[in-house]
Amino acid sequence: MPLTKPKVSKRGKEMPASPIRKLIPLADEIKKKGVKVYHLNIGQPDIPTPVEFMNAIRNYPNKVLAYGNSKGDIRLIQSMVEYYERKNIFVQPENIQITTGGSEALIFAMICISDVGEEIIVFEPFYTNYNSFARMADINLVPIPTKAENGYHLPDKKIIEKKITSKTRGILLATPNNPTGTVFTKPEMETIAELAKKHDLFFLSDEVYREFIYEGVHTSVMNMEGIEDRAILLDSISKRYSACGARIGCLVSKNKEVTDTALKLGQSRLCSPSIEQYGAIGALGLPEDYFLAMADEYKRRRDTCHAELMKIPGVFCQKPSGAFYIMAKFPVMDIEDFARWMLSDFSLDGATTMIAPGPGFYASKGMGKDEARIAYVLNVEDLKKAMRILAKGVEQYKKIKGKS
Amino acid sequence: MPLTKPKVSKRGKEMPASPIRKLIPLADEIKKKGVKVYHLNIGQPDIPTPVEFMNAIRNYPNKVLAYGNSKGDIRLIQSMVEYYERKNIFVQPENIQITTGGSEALIFAMICISDVGEEIIVFEPFYTNYNSFARMADINLVPIPTKAENGYHLPDKKIIEKKITSKTRGILLATPNNPTGTVFTKPEMETIAELAKKHDLFFLSDEVYREFIYEGVHTSVMNMEGIEDRAILLDSISKRYSACGARIGCLVSKNKEVTDTALKLGQSRLCSPSIEQYGAIGALGLPEDYFLAMADEYKRRRDTCHAELMKIPGVFCQKPSGAFYIMAKFPVMDIEDFARWMLSDFSLDGATTMIAPGPGFYASKGMGKDEARIAYVLNVEDLKKAMRILAKGVEQYKKIKGKS
Repeated sequence: MPLTKPKVSKRGKEMPASPIRKLIPLADEIKKKGVKVYHLNIGQPDIPTPVEFMNAIRNYPNKVLAYGNSKGDIRLIQSMVEYYERKNIFVQPENIQITTGGSEALIFAMICISDVGEEIIVFEPFYTNYNSFARMADINLVPIPTKAENGYHLPDKKIIEKKITSKTRGILLATPNNPTGTVFTKPEMETIAELAKKHDLFFLSDEVYREFIYEGVHTSVMNMEGIEDRAILLDSISKRYSACGARIGCLVSKNKEVTDTALKLGQSRLCSPSIEQYGAIGALGLPEDYFLAMADEYKRRRDTCHAELMKIPGVFCQKPSGAFYIMAKFPVMDIEDFARWMLSDFSLDGATTMIAPGPGFYASKGMGKDEARIAYVLNVEDLKKAMRILAKGVEQYKKIKGKS
Repeated sequence: MPLTKPKVSKRGKEMPASPIRKLIPLADEIKKKGVKVYHLNIGQPDIPTPVEFMNAIRNYPNKVLAYGNSKGDIRLIQSMVEYYERKNIFVQPENIQITTGGSEALIFAMICISDVGEEIIVFEPFYTNYNSFARMADINLVPIPTKAENGYHLPDKKIIEKKITSKTRGILLATPNNPTGTVFTKPEMETIAELAKKHDLFFLSDEVYREFIYEGVHTSVMNMEGIEDRAILLDSISKRYSACGARIGCLVSKNKEVTDTALKLGQSRLCSPSIEQYGAIGALGLPEDYFLAMADEYKRRRDTCHAELMKIPGVFCQKPSGAFYIMAKFPVMDIEDFARWMLSDFSLDGATTMIAPGPGFYASKGMGKDEARIAYVLNVEDLKKAMRILAKGVEQYKKIKGKS
């Protein structure tokens, strides 16, 4: 036997476990005991994947499931160009690199623009996996807080500018944002564009929730004037076609050096999933009213979720304008303890609710300890049941653990 | 317009373009002109993907294509355990992390065991994308040459040991090897295992060509005694089930810290492709004679390819024992120029041959300039045609450019 036990890397140790997923073993445990778990922790829509997607897969014509093009299936890229056109985003096929999910688009973008130890500015709270991608790429996320009180909109330009250093390579945001649902306004997007131009930075925009907007309009980074070579769009079909299990996304940029680099990264992993790309081509032909019906349904869910949350004594949240999440403050000292307790010690009529603890959505230590992200991805009826359980849970937890 | 043009990262610039794929635009160009291209450049088998895989996909039962488990579909993991058992490799479900292709298994392994600037020893020539993964992970591959003259087997233990420094975290090899087809012997594997134990290293073994063996037997890293916590197996279904477009692989380790870290990496990208995992479950039930028939077919191809290569004046190569590649020396000064010339300036009866230039399979500068990797993934008849074209091409190229 070896004298020493082999050790994993420092970055491997530091890699955060997903705050959205790390409580799953607890959920699995109680499910075995027959307890129903309402999953408000994960952005997994319950909407059926379009039949156009499923039929395409069932009719996959090739006998040999061969490697695809590293840039992506050319028919998929063409479908994406047409989809973007319908969204008033005008790009050419050469501007698009198909990626294995939006996740890969983000990690590719980070590696494309920054070297080890360099910095990308983000706005807290943000999508938790940005932290993991930054650890994988060994770069630093420099967080700038946004506040619930003003709907998690961007702070003053000067506050952002102060965080820009010689190591800063880009500014990253998601619009609509995950976990806050905030839709950034055109003036906000322009502010970031100006900063990118002034300080020689890239502007990275994660727009996977483009169609999930209930108030206001969507502004894409690709339509910011004067930063055509600094704009990088990160995208995914997961949410808009309820096809999260198909790992298909893309990175879009008019900067040829960026797409050339992304293609080299793409070549290293050979290709994105061929069959799921084929399915995506089927879905991308769907007309606009597909999204309108879906946004309508999610608006009802948002209204239900927000109304029910506001009824819980001590809970505070803003009504978000987009995506399908609400970031809410809870009357607890340690949201992670509460989230665990809901799974291991609480149930109501044989059911409980799983939420995503807030700290995972921050890079700053100690932030988000009384917040949780609620994904309103259940139908209105189930959502009401889940929120009733959550309300009762808060009530009982406060009794046991004391008010915060 | 900005005063400065935004720059990509240094590592992005340094990332090598795939030597296997970067000549594809040239091939596409001549295909448009009606020239047929025999692809000996890429390890894309022409064998049909098993109907068991395709039928599973066609019968995918879920209405919502939801996120899967980050560790992998539990049924797929169980099928893998049973597959390994048939190969006399005994592992538990918790030892397996499903990855998005063998590519992701390799990059996960590198990040799991090494920090920025640390080292992994490899044997040249090696699978070209190890270079790309190392650039993404920002680690250094320390190459040790192997020689055609002794079938690219490992050099003396002392030569390997000399390359181990305080920064070394692991030794990586592929058996059977890509691009050399070398099957490492049990004593060779034991030598690496001993070094791993003595110097506190991980032993990473890429075994995606396990079934493609024509002489000798396969020795898995998982069966090396005394290094149970140092052995990391990298695997993929791409080659053995002719399903390269399905991005399904795995990382296997009995070291819990390694699989825990790999799972965190897995959580960051949410899940591997759900539908293609479902297909893989179908394929993994295939009996052993599926592989025997396939190995038989590839043995015929190897014999043809080797015999034809040996007929070309000035070409030298060993007959490999495994995989489906031959690394061959050509009578040219600059193999990349020759490979390009074959695509842009040469054809015979309306067809030409594409090969993978050697330098991409080395980390040492200047190596492999007269070598190419030939993938014998075509049926015997096509292979003969392709080799005839290659022979004529060498003859004519020598006349034009002069002998080396």
